[in-house]
This record gives sequence, C-alpha cells and structure tokens, in this order.
Amino acid sequence: MSEVKIGRFYGLGVGPGAPDLLTLRAHRILTTIPVVVYPACKPGASSYAWRIVREHIPEATRRLAQVFPMSRDWASLIPVWRENAREIAAELRAGNDVAFVTEGDPMLFSTFLHVWELLRAEAPEVEVEVVPGVSSMCAAAALTGIALGQGDQRIAVIPATWHEDALRDALVEWDVVVLMKVARVLPRVIDLLKELGRYDHAALVSRGSSEQQIVTRDLEKFRDRRLNYLTTVLVGRPLAFVEGLLVESLQATIEEEEAS
Amino acid sequence: MSEVKIGRFYGLGVGPGAPDLLTLRAHRILTTIPVVVYPACKPGASSYAWRIVREHIPEATRRLAQVFPMSRDWASLIPVWRENAREIAAELRAGNDVAFVTEGDPMLFSTFLHVWELLRAEAPEVEVEVVPGVSSMCAAAALTGIALGQGDQRIAVIPATWHEDALRDALVEWDVVVLMKVARVLPRVIDLLKELGRYDHAALVSRGSSEQQIVTRDLEKFRDRRLNYLTTVLVGRPLAFVEGLLVESLQATIEEEEAS
Repeated sequence: MSEVKIGRFYGLGVGPGAPDLLTLRAHRILTTIPVVVYPACKPGASSYAWRIVREHIPEATRRLAQVFPMSRDWASLIPVWRENAREIAAELRAGNDVAFVTEGDPMLFSTFLHVWELLRAEAPEVEVEVVPGVSSMCAAAALTGIALGQGDQRIAVIPATWHEDALRDALVEWDVVVLMKVARVLPRVIDLLKELGRYDHAALVSRGSSEQQIVTRDLEKFRDRRLNYLTTVLVGRPLAFVEGLLVESLQATIEEEEAS
Repeated sequence: MSEVKIGRFYGLGVGPGAPDLLTLRAHRILTTIPVVVYPACKPGASSYAWRIVREHIPEATRRLAQVFPMSRDWASLIPVWRENAREIAAELRAGNDVAFVTEGDPMLFSTFLHVWELLRAEAPEVEVEVVPGVSSMCAAAALTGIALGQGDQRIAVIPATWHEDALRDALVEWDVVVLMKVARVLPRVIDLLKELGRYDHAALVSRGSSEQQIVTRDLEKFRDRRLNYLTTVLVGRPLAFVEGLLVESLQATIEEEEAS
C-alpha cells in the first residue's frame, strides 16, 4: 500500500484589491493549485479576497468558502475556526495542495493567522508556506502620496479601536501613524486628529486599488457614513524630513554657487 | 508643430528580492516601458533593485543607472539627486514613459521618495504613478513566521539607528517591533533585546526571499559580521493574543462539550 503524500498549505497574500497587484508567485500558485479556500464573514456572503483572485482561477479548481464570523465572542468562534482547520487538514491529508487566500499580506492582521494556529494544532505535520502580498497600508500610501516613512521617521501601526490615550500617544509621538479598522470609530479619530493638529496630513483609504475604493483627505465627509471594515487612516509627516533638509541644503548649495 | 506628449513617471516597487514577488502590474509595466531607471550606491556598483527585475526586462529597453551615494552629508547629496531628477525629466519631456525601480515598496524608506520630491520641483507637470510592492517587512514575517500583527496588537517600525532610549521605549511598549537598518548597530540591538527579554522572539532577515537571503533567529552569530544595509530585525509577540485566548476558549469548549 503506498502512502498518500500530504499536501502543502499556502497562506497566500493577494494584495490590497486590484487583481493585478497579485504577485507573479501567487498567480502561478493560484493557476495550478487544485483547491482554493477563501474566507467569508457569513454563509453565502461575498468574499473580498475571492473577488480579487476569481478572474485568475481556472474553471476546474475546487473552491471552498469558509465562514469566519465577525465576533468578539471567542468561545463561540473557536469551534467554527477549528472546524475550518479540520476541513483544510482533510484536503491536505487526501494529498491536495491547498491555498488559503487572504487580502493584503497574510502576516498582517489576517484571518490566515488564526487558521494557521489552529491547523498547527490539528495537523502539525503539514508544511506551510506563506506567500507575502502587497499590504493595504502600502497601497494606501501609493494612492494618497503619504510616505510611510523616510529618513529617520518612525511608524506606528495601531488598530483605531484602542482606547483614546493609546491613540493620542501614538499621534503625539510618532511621525507616521497608520490607524487600522477605523470604520466604527471614525468620529473619535477625526476629533483626535483635529485636536492634535494632524488632520491636514491625514487620508482615509478603504479597499484601496479595488473598484470599490474610497481614497479621500476629506474625512469629515465620512464621519457618519457606514464604512467597510477594511478602512485605514494614514497620518503622515509629509516629506518633513527631506523637505527640511532640502531647504537647508539647497540654500547651502545656492550660497556655494554664488561664492564660486 | 505638434507638441510632444510628456511621459508618465512610475515609482515601481519590485518587492523584497525574489523576481516572482513582483506584482503582475509591475511586470506588465517593466515589459512594455521604454526606459528603466535603477539606483546604485556608487558608479558601476551592482543594484539590488536591478538584480530583482533584470530577468523581466526586454533587450530593447533602455536602462539608466543613477548613482545615489550613501552619505549623511546632505549638502553634497542634493546636487547629485537633482542631476538625476533632471535626467529623468529630460526623458519624460522627450515623450518617454520612465519607471524608477525600487526594492520593496516605494513609499517605505525608498530612494524613490527623494527622486519624487526633486522631480516635483524640477518638473511639476509630470504625472506620477506609484505602484506598491511587497515590503521587506512582510517578506521577513513570511520567512520567519513572526506575525506582524494580529487582533489588537500594535506595531512599531523604527530605524535601529535611533538613540537607545527610543529603541528601549519601542521594545518595552509595543507588541511587534520592526527594526530597520540594523546593519551597523546589531551588537547594541542584541544587548537591548536580551536585557528586555525579547531576544527569544526576534529574528534577523537580510535581503529576504533573494538568493543571498539571510534568515536567522541566531542573531549572536552575526554580532560582529558585516551585514547588508537592507537588514531588518523583527521582534514579535508570537501569537500571544490568539494563543492566550485559545487556551482559555478551548478550555471553555471542552467544558461545554463535557457538560452537554
């Protein structure tokens, strides 16, 4: 009796939203792998990660939608997640490679991290390969022109759902601040940005680079609107470093040129 | 007399090192654009960004190597940068689209940000498009299994060249810390990690995903070695959040199952 070779599990970052912001590696895997798993927040709901990749997936590929409910009630979540991990483990043990697709990058606030954790408990023998993707914050920076960091700048990435003091500290002390998951707390974020004098250097990006993207510096316009979970506010110190030095150094150069 | 249409300028992220971690969009642009500009730190020196993309570039494409010296003497750097910006502006004004390639993501500590700044001064009429890429920190996370953030975790990204107090504060207060540019200060970083009890959850990644990659948890081994400028230390709180809750919630589930 020959043993079935266990499949390989891929945590696949599919980028921020545009299908062509997939990497060549992710594309190769998705066009050859037999099983693609994608997360949805409820049964039958559309999946953002799936919409990003679906145009690349061959007809014959098997697709498994798995439900990962949005909830803070961990005791009820874990059995659902564990069931998902078991379903994946069964596919792998049948010898199939499986790709779990996740928007943005798999190592940055993704459902994949939970799946990985539970799969490791369920089937520690499985080989896992993480394929990094373009993160939503890099896409947000590209779309807004707000640099994530240059020179000696320091960057803070923080879920906006943290208590106000934590947000205040980050906004006071850090050059660039990326606020994740702002959807439910936008009014508080706007008020803080204004109070701390950083509103003019902020931008809001939701599902950046996708067809449904919102990219705006007019945060107030969205104060009371319902926003997607995947909404980020980027707060920059736009070019403070280089600009400051530029002025100084250009001045020096001009003086040198005049003197020569 | 017909006017020449001015070219479009692309700030192109080419990812962390592996040629197949380029995005489909970057690949399409690089295989069709007439001029590719890549940075080198001195004349004739090899360029990391160029090595990542060269296999994708058609024979007929014009390549411009531009020197961006590594120096802190801004007064001497700016004229060199400005000359580079002028050379790019001349290409664009001749009607050629130009792609400036940069390793990782163009908005995260890249040479492109300086070029953009100076090009804007030189030729404000030029349209610029930034194409985001897979950042080196996402690649480092994928290669080490250290999550950049999950649940409510907060992430700090900070050049390791900051004074010790700033590094200490970040390492004490933040869940995940990404130390950039550690090459010259690794001994100090190692000592701090040990002092603060975070050495066991740290990893060092240099040019991750490339053929020359270094990926290790044994930072001591590299204490006195000469490391590439593009070296990062990732300090995680590995799965603290989910793991903690998992134990608790699995316990709850087991009790429920036993009770039912």
